[in-house]
Amino acid sequence: MEQMIPTVAVRHLGEHVDNTVRVRGWLETKRSSGKIAFLLVRDGSGKVQAVASRKELSEAAWEAVSTVTQESTVSVVGNVHADSRAPGGYELHVSDAVVEQQVEDYPITPKEHGTAFLMEHRHLWLRSSKQRAALAVRSEVSHAIRDFFYRREFTLIDSPILTPAACEGTSTLFETDYFGDPAFLSQSGQLYLEPALAAFGKVYCFGPTFRAEKSKTRRHLMEFWMVEPEIAFLEFDGLCALAEEFVRELVGRVLDNCREHLDVLERDVSKLEAIDGTFPRITYREAIEILKAEGQEIEFGDDFGGEHETILASRFERPVMVTRFPAAMKAFYMQPDPEDPEVALGVDLLAPEGYGEIIGGSQRIHDHDFLLARIEQHELPLSAFQWYLDVRRYGTCPHSGFGMGLERFVAWMCGLKHLRETIPYPRMLYKIYP
Amino acid sequence: MEQMIPTVAVRHLGEHVDNTVRVRGWLETKRSSGKIAFLLVRDGSGKVQAVASRKELSEAAWEAVSTVTQESTVSVVGNVHADSRAPGGYELHVSDAVVEQQVEDYPITPKEHGTAFLMEHRHLWLRSSKQRAALAVRSEVSHAIRDFFYRREFTLIDSPILTPAACEGTSTLFETDYFGDPAFLSQSGQLYLEPALAAFGKVYCFGPTFRAEKSKTRRHLMEFWMVEPEIAFLEFDGLCALAEEFVRELVGRVLDNCREHLDVLERDVSKLEAIDGTFPRITYREAIEILKAEGQEIEFGDDFGGEHETILASRFERPVMVTRFPAAMKAFYMQPDPEDPEVALGVDLLAPEGYGEIIGGSQRIHDHDFLLARIEQHELPLSAFQWYLDVRRYGTCPHSGFGMGLERFVAWMCGLKHLRETIPYPRMLYKIYP
Repeated sequence: MEQMIPTVAVRHLGEHVDNTVRVRGWLETKRSSGKIAFLLVRDGSGKVQAVASRKELSEAAWEAVSTVTQESTVSVVGNVHADSRAPGGYELHVSDAVVEQQVEDYPITPKEHGTAFLMEHRHLWLRSSKQRAALAVRSEVSHAIRDFFYRREFTLIDSPILTPAACEGTSTLFETDYFGDPAFLSQSGQLYLEPALAAFGKVYCFGPTFRAEKSKTRRHLMEFWMVEPEIAFLEFDGLCALAEEFVRELVGRVLDNCREHLDVLERDVSKLEAIDGTFPRITYREAIEILKAEGQEIEFGDDFGGEHETILASRFERPVMVTRFPAAMKAFYMQPDPEDPEVALGVDLLAPEGYGEIIGGSQRIHDHDFLLARIEQHELPLSAFQWYLDVRRYGTCPHSGFGMGLERFVAWMCGLKHLRETIPYPRMLYKIYP
Repeated sequence: MEQMIPTVAVRHLGEHVDNTVRVRGWLETKRSSGKIAFLLVRDGSGKVQAVASRKELSEAAWEAVSTVTQESTVSVVGNVHADSRAPGGYELHVSDAVVEQQVEDYPITPKEHGTAFLMEHRHLWLRSSKQRAALAVRSEVSHAIRDFFYRREFTLIDSPILTPAACEGTSTLFETDYFGDPAFLSQSGQLYLEPALAAFGKVYCFGPTFRAEKSKTRRHLMEFWMVEPEIAFLEFDGLCALAEEFVRELVGRVLDNCREHLDVLERDVSKLEAIDGTFPRITYREAIEILKAEGQEIEFGDDFGGEHETILASRFERPVMVTRFPAAMKAFYMQPDPEDPEVALGVDLLAPEGYGEIIGGSQRIHDHDFLLARIEQHELPLSAFQWYLDVRRYGTCPHSGFGMGLERFVAWMCGLKHLRETIPYPRMLYKIYP
């Protein structure tokens, strides 16, 4: 009659209390005496402790539970008991057990391993508790991002990865041969979103982007996912409000749906709960004054370093929005502030706790001749921008957008210092395996 | 008092009947006499007819509406009237109008244009009704795909685009230099999903994939989006059931949420409504017999051509699932049928109406030594597959998955013959602009 026992996901054991079910998964850890064995079984949806007593098992089943090794594939049949002390709230009282594959010498043991070793074994490291938790948060945040825009009636416009021309120099671009012509892997979908505004009004893209930067910091990946909304007729203040609403909603969703993962990551949740409310806004000019007062050597026109961001962010519990950067510092397409044309209507959102910039956005220049002049000032190849200028030639409108790197946001949520743990298969300097 | 007039999206005019609102958008078409003008205004959320009467307008406003040109940016203030004859059900009775940008010589006029011309102007062609409709369907389908897996508790595992080794030969791969080593743009995330099963049980990826194929057909793109689920402990029959459930749910969602777009595309909706129900399943062996009986010259071991797929699909109103292909024909990782080892436990789902294969899937080989033998038989570089073999070495389990190309599915939904209209910026042979 064994085939009538339902296989149940650990996450759903609570729906089967006092019933006999089967759990199939992997053995995470085991403790046993000669009479009783405790197996921690993981099936991808959760973990459950299976308690096996020698006197209640067949000889074969006891042999299975008492010899099973770490990461072996197991099939365990048992009765579901509610037990508030058990992780997850339920325990399995085992009546039968089979080892589907007995594993020899799983490389990642409960002892400490170096990062280089773990990165070489990323395909197995994924199974470790903290890695699972971080990637589960990533999965939830990804969907929350899409829900945010879907519910607000944005149209998803997948921007291309293969692009013919470099926006701003080719030194940090991956290049490939496209049937005889050079092509480059995209660093941003923005230029492809703007033409879609006259068709859809509100659009976004969310896909992989690439940066061939010879840098080896914990805050850079060669391949990362970026979400970029772009909105017709939206001006600068509206953009700042949207970015704030976006971040607040995502944080709320993580708090609502990822508590167990944050626990595993030992994240101080109170830091995230403090995000609920209006975000402080300071101008770049004010930021420079603050940094000078803190003894930093920085002048109008200088970009912030990591330390500057940390100083600024540490003054606030919530993310701080720094606005109105020197136009000369920023991308050619940013709209100058009409009241202070030396600065551009751009915004960077700095996360608390030293997580740095997670959003950068701006109102875009929508006047054709002005944008043309900027392209020429920046000595960009005009022929490559004709189609982009067409957006200003044919029915232009004020518009704004921002970009947020998924990995940086997830690192902040999870309290992870290094981006490499926020993406399943990180691509770093000289690191492309597996 | 003008600043108190709310700007309203056309889609939401119904919430403002008998009130005065502002619509900002683009002039699609205009008809006018000396006394009255009908403007069709598009704002990305929809289109509304704005009716302007000379005697009710200021001189400046009448001048604006009577001289405004195609694709000019307009701001129209008026009273919302419910009118069942109007497209969308509402009309705007104009009290004021401003042309924000008057456009000269918009390249795409209501007359016919050749495809080459339209493709060169893809960034503007996006505004045309049918293009908008197709991309709106794409956006809805994309979100429906993610909802499908999110609701079923799959974890999103973004597979990398930059990969170190070619799965199956490099002839159709885009190559780039990765800090001195060759890297290739991914054709599938499957190999990266399988290791994540022991961590998450049910996973999927959905991102851009690349194929550098020197072919110029209406059914190929160099860059396209593919969704790939992979499920631990799922065997072949379960996989077929999942693929069927998936397609049925997506079709249902398109029928529920995209009626207006299907109307614009003049899609015969009855063909899609017929999808609701069990999908017929035939084996490859049966398919060969059917094709032979139809007079086709085809033998066991031959792959289907487009014509074969059309013949098979035309026998059914619903998608047909062709199963159990000759193992020699298919990828090295497919599990053979234990009852007929000459064939593999693979399935292709063929859409009706000649839209061809939209899903391909299989149960994967989970035995280590058997997979190793297959890798050697296929003369694949063993060193590149050690990490993939680790999935079988450490806690292997039966598992299955499939892949679906987004553009093919959208083409079927929209009744479009050519994939190029199902993606915002198609990448085709020698075509990478804009």
